[in-house]
Amino acid sequence: MADPSFFKNCGPFNLQAIADQTGSNLFNSDLADIEIRDVAPLESAQEGNLSFLDNPKYKDDFQKTKAAAVILPEKMVGLAPKGAALLVSENPYKSYALAAQMFYPEEFPVAKISDQACVDTQAKIGKGCVIEACAVIKNGAQIGAGTWIEAGAVIGENVQIGKNCRIGAGATLSHAVIGDAVRLYPGVRVGQDGFGFAIDPAGHIKVPQLGRVIIEDHVEIGANSCIDRGAGPDTVIGAGTWIDNLVQIGHNVKIGKGCVLVAHCGIAGSTVLEDYVVLGGQVGVAGHLKIGSGARVAAQSGVMRDIPAGEEQMGSPALPKKQAMRQVAALKRLTEGAKNE
Amino acid sequence: MADPSFFKNCGPFNLQAIADQTGSNLFNSDLADIEIRDVAPLESAQEGNLSFLDNPKYKDDFQKTKAAAVILPEKMVGLAPKGAALLVSENPYKSYALAAQMFYPEEFPVAKISDQACVDTQAKIGKGCVIEACAVIKNGAQIGAGTWIEAGAVIGENVQIGKNCRIGAGATLSHAVIGDAVRLYPGVRVGQDGFGFAIDPAGHIKVPQLGRVIIEDHVEIGANSCIDRGAGPDTVIGAGTWIDNLVQIGHNVKIGKGCVLVAHCGIAGSTVLEDYVVLGGQVGVAGHLKIGSGARVAAQSGVMRDIPAGEEQMGSPALPKKQAMRQVAALKRLTEGAKNE
Amino acid sequence: MADPSFFKNCGPFNLQAIADQTGSNLFNSDLADIEIRDVAPLESAQEGNLSFLDNPKYKDDFQKTKAAAVILPEKMVGLAPKGAALLVSENPYKSYALAAQMFYPEEFPVAKISDQACVDTQAKIGKGCVIEACAVIKNGAQIGAGTWIEAGAVIGENVQIGKNCRIGAGATLSHAVIGDAVRLYPGVRVGQDGFGFAIDPAGHIKVPQLGRVIIEDHVEIGANSCIDRGAGPDTVIGAGTWIDNLVQIGHNVKIGKGCVLVAHCGIAGSTVLEDYVVLGGQVGVAGHLKIGSGARVAAQSGVMRDIPAGEEQMGSPALPKKQAMRQVAALKRLTEGAKNE
Repeated sequence: MADPSFFKNCGPFNLQAIADQTGSNLFNSDLADIEIRDVAPLESAQEGNLSFLDNPKYKDDFQKTKAAAVILPEKMVGLAPKGAALLVSENPYKSYALAAQMFYPEEFPVAKISDQACVDTQAKIGKGCVIEACAVIKNGAQIGAGTWIEAGAVIGENVQIGKNCRIGAGATLSHAVIGDAVRLYPGVRVGQDGFGFAIDPAGHIKVPQLGRVIIEDHVEIGANSCIDRGAGPDTVIGAGTWIDNLVQIGHNVKIGKGCVLVAHCGIAGSTVLEDYVVLGGQVGVAGHLKIGSGARVAAQSGVMRDIPAGEEQMGSPALPKKQAMRQVAALKRLTEGAKNE
Repeated sequence: MADPSFFKNCGPFNLQAIADQTGSNLFNSDLADIEIRDVAPLESAQEGNLSFLDNPKYKDDFQKTKAAAVILPEKMVGLAPKGAALLVSENPYKSYALAAQMFYPEEFPVAKISDQACVDTQAKIGKGCVIEACAVIKNGAQIGAGTWIEAGAVIGENVQIGKNCRIGAGATLSHAVIGDAVRLYPGVRVGQDGFGFAIDPAGHIKVPQLGRVIIEDHVEIGANSCIDRGAGPDTVIGAGTWIDNLVQIGHNVKIGKGCVLVAHCGIAGSTVLEDYVVLGGQVGVAGHLKIGSGARVAAQSGVMRDIPAGEEQMGSPALPKKQAMRQVAALKRLTEGAKNE
Repeated sequence: MADPSFFKNCGPFNLQAIADQTGSNLFNSDLADIEIRDVAPLESAQEGNLSFLDNPKYKDDFQKTKAAAVILPEKMVGLAPKGAALLVSENPYKSYALAAQMFYPEEFPVAKISDQACVDTQAKIGKGCVIEACAVIKNGAQIGAGTWIEAGAVIGENVQIGKNCRIGAGATLSHAVIGDAVRLYPGVRVGQDGFGFAIDPAGHIKVPQLGRVIIEDHVEIGANSCIDRGAGPDTVIGAGTWIDNLVQIGHNVKIGKGCVLVAHCGIAGSTVLEDYVVLGGQVGVAGHLKIGSGARVAAQSGVMRDIPAGEEQMGSPALPKKQAMRQVAALKRLTEGAKNE
């Protein structure tokens, strides 16, 4: 069970309510009134808990689970142990996520501007905002209704933030226009100068960075990640894109909708990621490239060329996945040969 | 045009003034009085804008540009479309950078120590400084004239900062001596203990880290980068070196003048980079190495040995560039062979 | 000598006192009363300094050193120059570390809660704590006796921190239970949501992250590193583990005792590191793996499979060290061949 010091359980809910809100169908209609008290993975679930199965690999856990009810795809109904209530879903993990959100909705503190926040008199704060202690909101900044600015965050001059956002503790923003329902985690850096300069023997000469950062709705950006503003064009993070911790996004980068960037990725200036691109952890992408829609790049790859839409790549330098795996295999054969000599 | 919420255009300027301040020569002397209102890249330039060309690859953009004037090298004058005013420069990008600085000089707020800053009575603050809200400046710290400490930055005891520096929001400094015109971006960490300990089965034993961080004039350090202080000797960042975001510099590292370190680089303890070294993104350099003056290391390389001055290396482990490229090619041939078998 | 602006030397101490506190034996018992004024490496040691030797490679420095006394292993006593006082130790570097701690113990400011700190009335602060300006301590947080919360750190609701900890400037904690003598460096992020969501064409759906971060005693976590809280199980950092700067620890990761993780490492969700594992810089470890006790992984490796206890691996994908080195050598031979053709 989640530690009640940190998480408030809003249950119980009966199975029918859960089915209704999670897009799943109750297989055992006589069990509609059963009360579910919590969510948990199959192996740690207790009496009265709801769990899920989406991979036949875990069928043994399923057989032994104490969960009162399990969300699963139709084709796995036959694996069910006796007595378990079943909720059939086309996307069991999604349904489980929605159920978990019922029990543990995101908490929002009572709307309040802390006496210890530093809010400029020329900033515009929407209705129902939370502005915590030591947050600094500068001249001309606009904060949409229902947005939560955590302790020590700094919102620069004229920055615009939409509705229902949450800006993490110690995050800093400048030169940025942020949509609705955006979440920036603690320590995120948005809008600072990109790494742009003219090389000169007498000392690098800064090229003024005259663009902004545009973050569209429903974006999440992980702790301590950095999004530099554009050099002239804007840097853009598309709607619904999720970025993990410690990621670097260079100036002028354009990221499409629904992309996923895992921790420690770095994208150099002016590169374009179309929609639904997935980059594994520690991937590096060179500047001025185009990564096509739905492309997937394995962890630690180094991308030096454009990637066509839908293609999977891996390796450094990155290659189409099959080709990269052939190289790994060839290298293995080569050393087996060497050993036999 | 740059968003006027975030950028103030100080133009217009006439062409002669621009030529004078950017080290370029006006090719069409009769156009000296033409007024330029803004700067922009060739393809997005509008009437009255100044642009630049330094790569013949963009000659089509040049032919079609709406820019009123273009900075270019002498040898590309022949590519000019009719009617464009030309400024001839030996380093067009540098001249463009200087022109952009005329239109958009770095803004400096009115000098002021915020009532909501926490400045120790024993700190010395020079003339004309800006100290923003929630900045914390401790006992004995010295801040030079004209330096700007942004919101939430923390300046540790006895830290010395020179003139005309800018310390970003939420940056933290301790055990450091900082020169003039240094810029630290938000979230930079300077002067914390290096990763130094004696291994012991009963628990690692910290080796007190008794050195400092010395940052020379005109250095820039990107958002969320970390510079550990020396273990006994100092960690030194040489004049005019530019460090990108999320870079790690270990204890005792010495970096020379004018180096460039791209995002996510990591340099282990006691390594020396001589002057004008360039490291691509995500490069790792092992400890106790010497990287010679002017050496260049490609992105994602892993440097495990000294690099002679001027040499280019790539790969992990890093090799001289030609050798590394031969390996990439050999591996490719090998798998082509495998496919044909 | 360490800069007295930043470091206070608590010496002198006589040799016998140093021998007693560092687990070493004074070889020249007649020198017990000699006064030692400072510690320094062999090559920079001055009169009255204590140094150490643990690698015969430095025997020339030893011959020439001005140090008054040197800690060394018994087998190197024969290398000693005339006149040097010798302290014999089984682990000279450990003994040196302990001696350096005598001269330069960690300083602890006078216990005080700053008037400019923001401490919730429902937080519990132990005896002898230091809470600096602009630190924010929320409702229900518990801070153990003798703990030091630096400027601008944010301690979330109900977070528990043990005794004698030090929480760096600008660090942020939520959903966490921290042991005793833990040190978090500036900008560390502990307890934010892990990167957990169900993929859905209409937009990623967050899976509530219902676990905590548990940090056991004597852990150190470097500047700007990020430790995500568990998704259901907790994320755990075992006693005495040391983590360097800019490291990413995903949700549900369990790290054992005494591990060492060098800068820029990233560990994906649900992976287990047993005790005394060492990861070099920029290592990536995929999710759901088990890295056995005492395993060692070279810098920049990419770990995609379990590693048995005690094994050394390197490369991306990571292989047992011998195998990886054979591949490096084979590739080298291959291109030498190519060159000769």
